[in-house]
Amino acid sequence: MLVQGQRYRTIWEHPEDAQIIQIIDQRPLPHQFVIEEVRSVNQMAKAIKEMHLRGAGLIGAAAGYGMYLATLEALRNDHTQDYVLACGEQLKATRPTAVNLEWAVNRQLAALREVAEAKERVVVSLKVAREIANEDASYCQKIGEYGLDLITNIADKKQDTVNILTHCNAGWLAFVDFGSATAPIYSAHQNGIKLHVWVDETRPRNQGARLTAWELHENNVPYTVISDNVGGHLMQHGLVDMVIVGSDRTTHTGDVANKIGTYLKALAAHDNQVPFYVALPSSTIDWSIDNGIIDIPIEQREGEEVKYIQGLSNGVLTKVLLTPEGSNAANYAFDVTPARLITGLITERGVCPASREGILTLFPERK
Amino acid sequence: MLVQGQRYRTIWEHPEDAQIIQIIDQRPLPHQFVIEEVRSVNQMAKAIKEMHLRGAGLIGAAAGYGMYLATLEALRNDHTQDYVLACGEQLKATRPTAVNLEWAVNRQLAALREVAEAKERVVVSLKVAREIANEDASYCQKIGEYGLDLITNIADKKQDTVNILTHCNAGWLAFVDFGSATAPIYSAHQNGIKLHVWVDETRPRNQGARLTAWELHENNVPYTVISDNVGGHLMQHGLVDMVIVGSDRTTHTGDVANKIGTYLKALAAHDNQVPFYVALPSSTIDWSIDNGIIDIPIEQREGEEVKYIQGLSNGVLTKVLLTPEGSNAANYAFDVTPARLITGLITERGVCPASREGILTLFPERK
Repeated sequence: MLVQGQRYRTIWEHPEDAQIIQIIDQRPLPHQFVIEEVRSVNQMAKAIKEMHLRGAGLIGAAAGYGMYLATLEALRNDHTQDYVLACGEQLKATRPTAVNLEWAVNRQLAALREVAEAKERVVVSLKVAREIANEDASYCQKIGEYGLDLITNIADKKQDTVNILTHCNAGWLAFVDFGSATAPIYSAHQNGIKLHVWVDETRPRNQGARLTAWELHENNVPYTVISDNVGGHLMQHGLVDMVIVGSDRTTHTGDVANKIGTYLKALAAHDNQVPFYVALPSSTIDWSIDNGIIDIPIEQREGEEVKYIQGLSNGVLTKVLLTPEGSNAANYAFDVTPARLITGLITERGVCPASREGILTLFPERK
Repeated sequence: MLVQGQRYRTIWEHPEDAQIIQIIDQRPLPHQFVIEEVRSVNQMAKAIKEMHLRGAGLIGAAAGYGMYLATLEALRNDHTQDYVLACGEQLKATRPTAVNLEWAVNRQLAALREVAEAKERVVVSLKVAREIANEDASYCQKIGEYGLDLITNIADKKQDTVNILTHCNAGWLAFVDFGSATAPIYSAHQNGIKLHVWVDETRPRNQGARLTAWELHENNVPYTVISDNVGGHLMQHGLVDMVIVGSDRTTHTGDVANKIGTYLKALAAHDNQVPFYVALPSSTIDWSIDNGIIDIPIEQREGEEVKYIQGLSNGVLTKVLLTPEGSNAANYAFDVTPARLITGLITERGVCPASREGILTLFPERK
């Protein structure tokens, strides 16, 4: 998507040296646009863990490229294949809730299983990393097309601006391009549908206020930032026509783990008969888990992320303390929205009910 | 309650000059403890509007003392009674959602109606202001006693630490003393019941992270600050035994206008069968309104309060920008929780269902 009028993806190979991976460092956004060069598995693992990059699809693509860097390191230093396996474990362990890490690492390992020669392993691994990234972008584009139909229907009925609420950043910054929740929004915007996005701030890391707002700003989509507390009130007063959020892990029964607070918005949507959609490429589906609330591990991050916040003061990125110094703070990063609260899933193969049966209609090969 | 081990109320007459009202300026909390001197109606109106002080009960008490300052000004400057009436209108207009302002101003005007002599009006007005403040404190104390029974019941059943979630600050800082939602908590803590409070940060003005956390800290009650997104997840996992919040305006049918985001917590409590109580002195009851969602005016404040946040950086209070510079932001300050989601109201006369009939059992004189 566009940054200062120029097209970017969130992760790419250095144009002059494919042994260097370039990413957008999302931490100083929206105030500074910084490109980071990643040259090792360790650096990639750190970038994922410390959230230089984040988002379901993007951390999958990053893990794919991380595995490629691992095969490069194995080649350079004459490491055995066990080294690459260990790198895979390291990458998987960076974030526990999102399923894409595991999915991308396993896809790389499956491709490498039959390849013994170290140089050839690099070639295969780069190919798989590119496939993962390109597939992510093209799946998001398809999500945009299917989601566009849903927005068009609302616009046709309403004959007025469509108000869409989204939580966190399931934008192009969370994927390789287009985004999941934002893909239908960008698509509708490009098709001339009048829309406006309510952007949940998304404490504690403010991915909404920082990233979604920045994305929409750079791509000229009208939006308003609100605190996470506001969505219910807006829905009570008819100010939200639909909700679209992303997913970090979707059970094959339709439960959705997404950024903490998603569940609260789903409850409000349900209470006010507002359609609540989850947009996700199938890479986020966990085919092994039945009950999301019981079985999806929820990442707990440092309480410091709640107690301190970063913003711009006199042009300088500054961290400020929000609570009494000695406060305890808890920082659960995700919650699980049960399938019963979800109107539908928007996938790269179409829209389906959030249920085992619904998902199988689109993915019959999983029967 | 205690500040650095010393007992305070939130509003009081200057011990050496009762023509000066002293308040705790809540804006620099929890980082700085500042006492402000209020010497005129204008200054009091500004203190309410710009939230040097806030909270249902406290703004009522502040309006009470504001009217006393008005009678003083009328005496000093030979103003007619119309001046005091106009001051009442000015005070009422400072914050639209809370009903206590109107209630306190009307109580003063009713008392002053039969008093013609300017000096005598000052005496009457000071008496009424004191009554409002003392009544607020004593009603909160009674709320503490009735709420204590509810907490004791849970503690007896659970035989373990009682986890209470609260939103915003309905603490002693929001009243003259004790608080509404916090009164049962302080009371239980003093009675040796083991409890722990989940403190919702309460964006955008962070009354939870700043004020409730500070209060509990100063009074040695165990607590953990969480972002507003977390409560639903905690309830899904049995980590909340009860919710207690305050009210800025309660319809006589049991709907509750409280800090934005309260409705989302009520939905989550309902979805997880967690008892959801609202603690309120009867001064917050609006006997004229049937439907809270339709009829309670919801204050909209500056979007800047969402875009910027203040905290401590290197010992200095610093404001930082959180969003892209040119972002729109909306700032609805309250939402309305419908009576159907409320387990009970804790008032100075006891606990009752959130319904017309329930409220009338405690306030039969309103039949």
